[in-house]
Amino acid sequence: MTDPAASAYRRFRDELLHHGLLISMGVDGLFGRSGGFERVLEGVNAAIGAVGDVDRPEVMRFPPGIGSLQLEQSGYLRNFPHLAGTVASFSGGDDDHRALLDSLSKGEDWSGTQRPTGVALTPAACYGAYPVVAARGRLPEAGALVDVYTWCFRHEPSIDPARMQMFRQREHVRIGSPAQIATFRETWLERARSLVESLGLPMAIEVANDPFFGRVGRILANSQRERSLKFELLVPIVAEAPRTACVSFNDHRDLFGRAWAIEAQDGGVAHTACVGFGVERLTLALLRHHGFVPGDWPAGVRHVLGL
Amino acid sequence: MTDPAASAYRRFRDELLHHGLLISMGVDGLFGRSGGFERVLEGVNAAIGAVGDVDRPEVMRFPPGIGSLQLEQSGYLRNFPHLAGTVASFSGGDDDHRALLDSLSKGEDWSGTQRPTGVALTPAACYGAYPVVAARGRLPEAGALVDVYTWCFRHEPSIDPARMQMFRQREHVRIGSPAQIATFRETWLERARSLVESLGLPMAIEVANDPFFGRVGRILANSQRERSLKFELLVPIVAEAPRTACVSFNDHRDLFGRAWAIEAQDGGVAHTACVGFGVERLTLALLRHHGFVPGDWPAGVRHVLGL
Repeated sequence: MTDPAASAYRRFRDELLHHGLLISMGVDGLFGRSGGFERVLEGVNAAIGAVGDVDRPEVMRFPPGIGSLQLEQSGYLRNFPHLAGTVASFSGGDDDHRALLDSLSKGEDWSGTQRPTGVALTPAACYGAYPVVAARGRLPEAGALVDVYTWCFRHEPSIDPARMQMFRQREHVRIGSPAQIATFRETWLERARSLVESLGLPMAIEVANDPFFGRVGRILANSQRERSLKFELLVPIVAEAPRTACVSFNDHRDLFGRAWAIEAQDGGVAHTACVGFGVERLTLALLRHHGFVPGDWPAGVRHVLGL
Repeated sequence: MTDPAASAYRRFRDELLHHGLLISMGVDGLFGRSGGFERVLEGVNAAIGAVGDVDRPEVMRFPPGIGSLQLEQSGYLRNFPHLAGTVASFSGGDDDHRALLDSLSKGEDWSGTQRPTGVALTPAACYGAYPVVAARGRLPEAGALVDVYTWCFRHEPSIDPARMQMFRQREHVRIGSPAQIATFRETWLERARSLVESLGLPMAIEVANDPFFGRVGRILANSQRERSLKFELLVPIVAEAPRTACVSFNDHRDLFGRAWAIEAQDGGVAHTACVGFGVERLTLALLRHHGFVPGDWPAGVRHVLGL
C-alpha cells in the first residue's frame, strides 16, 4: 500500500482501534464504538440539537430502514443504486432449510436462499420524513420543519474510518416555499460554521455534488454544482487525503416534492431542503485535532460538548 | 379480520398512530417514533443503565449491522434463517444501470440486480460483543461483562405494534464460568422484576424458548425449555392476545463460547449469558397501562423514568 492517502487512513484507523475508541468488526466500514467515543458523539448531537431547537422543529425518529417502495419512490435507487442497501431474508420451508444447512456446513455460498423482504436501509436521515409530511395534505403557511436522527447505510466499504457503511446523521429538514428554503439554508450555513468553529476545527464551506452513479450521473453532478444546490462543510481529518464532508446543505428544489406529491400552501409542488450533520465524522475530526483523550481537550470545546 | 387478537393489535396500533406516538411508514413493523415516544424510551433505557452501571460493565455500541460471516459463525442463520436479514446492493456497471432504470420505470421487479454485500442486520444486541471478547484471548479471572444497546432486525412483519421488524435492545452480556453465569442470571432476574415493578406494570417471569425454525427447531425449543435455559419477563399489553416478552434472560451454555472460541480462565470454553430489554416493548407497555399522555402518569413512574 504505497498510496499516501491509503496509508494515512490505515494509520488513523489503527490509532482509533488501539485507543479502544473504535472496535473492529471484521468488515471495512463497520465498527463498534466505545463508551468514550459515544460520549463525544452524544455531545456533538446534543450541541446540534441545542442550535436547532430554537426553531421548534417536529421531532421524528426513524429506524435504520424504510420500505423498498419508499426508497424506489424517492429516486435514490435510480441515482445511487451502488450505495443503496436492500434487506433480504430466507423464506423457504423445511426442505429449503435443509439445503441452507448443507450449504452452511460445506462453507458454500448460501445467498441464493435470500429473497427480498420489502425493507431497505435508510440512505439518509431525511428520507423517512417526506412521505409522512406528504400524507398530511397541503402544507400550512409556515411549511414544515422536521428534526431527524437516524442510522444510515451506504455500501462503500473503505479503510477510511470517516467513510463508514453504517453511521448516524442528525438533520433538519425544511419543506415549504422556495423563499422558506432559501432562508433555511442561509440560516444553517451560518449556524453550522459557528458550531464547528466553537469545536475548534479548521473548515471550509464549498459547493459540492452528490456521488450520482455512472455516465448519466456525471451530468447530474455537474448540473448540481452549476446550480449551487449542494454545499459541504469540509474538515481536514487525514492530512494526506481529501477533506471530509462533515455537514451538507442540500437544496432539492421540487425533487422530493414531486416524488412524494407534497402540496405547497399555494397548491403547487413544495420545495425541500435539508442540513445533515455526520456525527461520527465530527467526532472523528475532534479526536484527530484535539487528541485521543477527550478529558485533555480545550475547556471551551469540552463545554460545547457538555463533557 | 374477526380474530380478536388481530383486532386488538390493530386498535392499539391505530391509537398509537392517532396520538402521534408512532408514525406510519407504510410497512408492517416499521414505524417512526415521535419525540414524546423517544423521551419515554430514553427514560426506560437510562433506568436500565442505572441498574446495571453498579457492575461497571464495558460499554460497546454497535451499528445495526454485523458481517454476514459473523452472523453465519454465530449459528443464527442455522437456527433462525426466517428472521435474519442480509443486505444486498447493486454492483453492476452502466449497462446494468440502464436495465435497472428500465425496470424501475416499468414498475417491474428489480430485485435481480441486488448482490450480497457481506453485511447482515444485527439480530440481537449481544451478537457484536462475542467476537470482540474472543479476539482478546483468554478471559481474565473476573470474566467479561459488556453493556450493549443496538438496533436489531427480525423479519416478522406484524400488525402487533410490539412486534416490530426494527427495534432497540439494551443488554448486559456476561462471559465467564458457569458459576459466574448463574450469579449473573439470578441477579438480573431480581433486578428486572424490581425495575418493571417500579414502572407499575403487571408481569410474570416464565420459562420460554426461542423461535427456532422448522421441524428441527421444535426439538431445540423443547430442549431449551426442559433445561430452563431461557426465561422471559412477560407483560400483558393487548388483553386479547398473548403477553409480550419485554425482558429475556438467556443462558447460552457454551454455544457462543464454542462458536467464537472464547477461552475461559481455566483454558476451557467460556460460557455466556445475556439479559436483554426490549425498550420499545417496555415503552408500549407503559403507554398501554398508564395512558397515552406520559405527563399524566403516576409520579413514581415518572420519577423512575426521569420524566
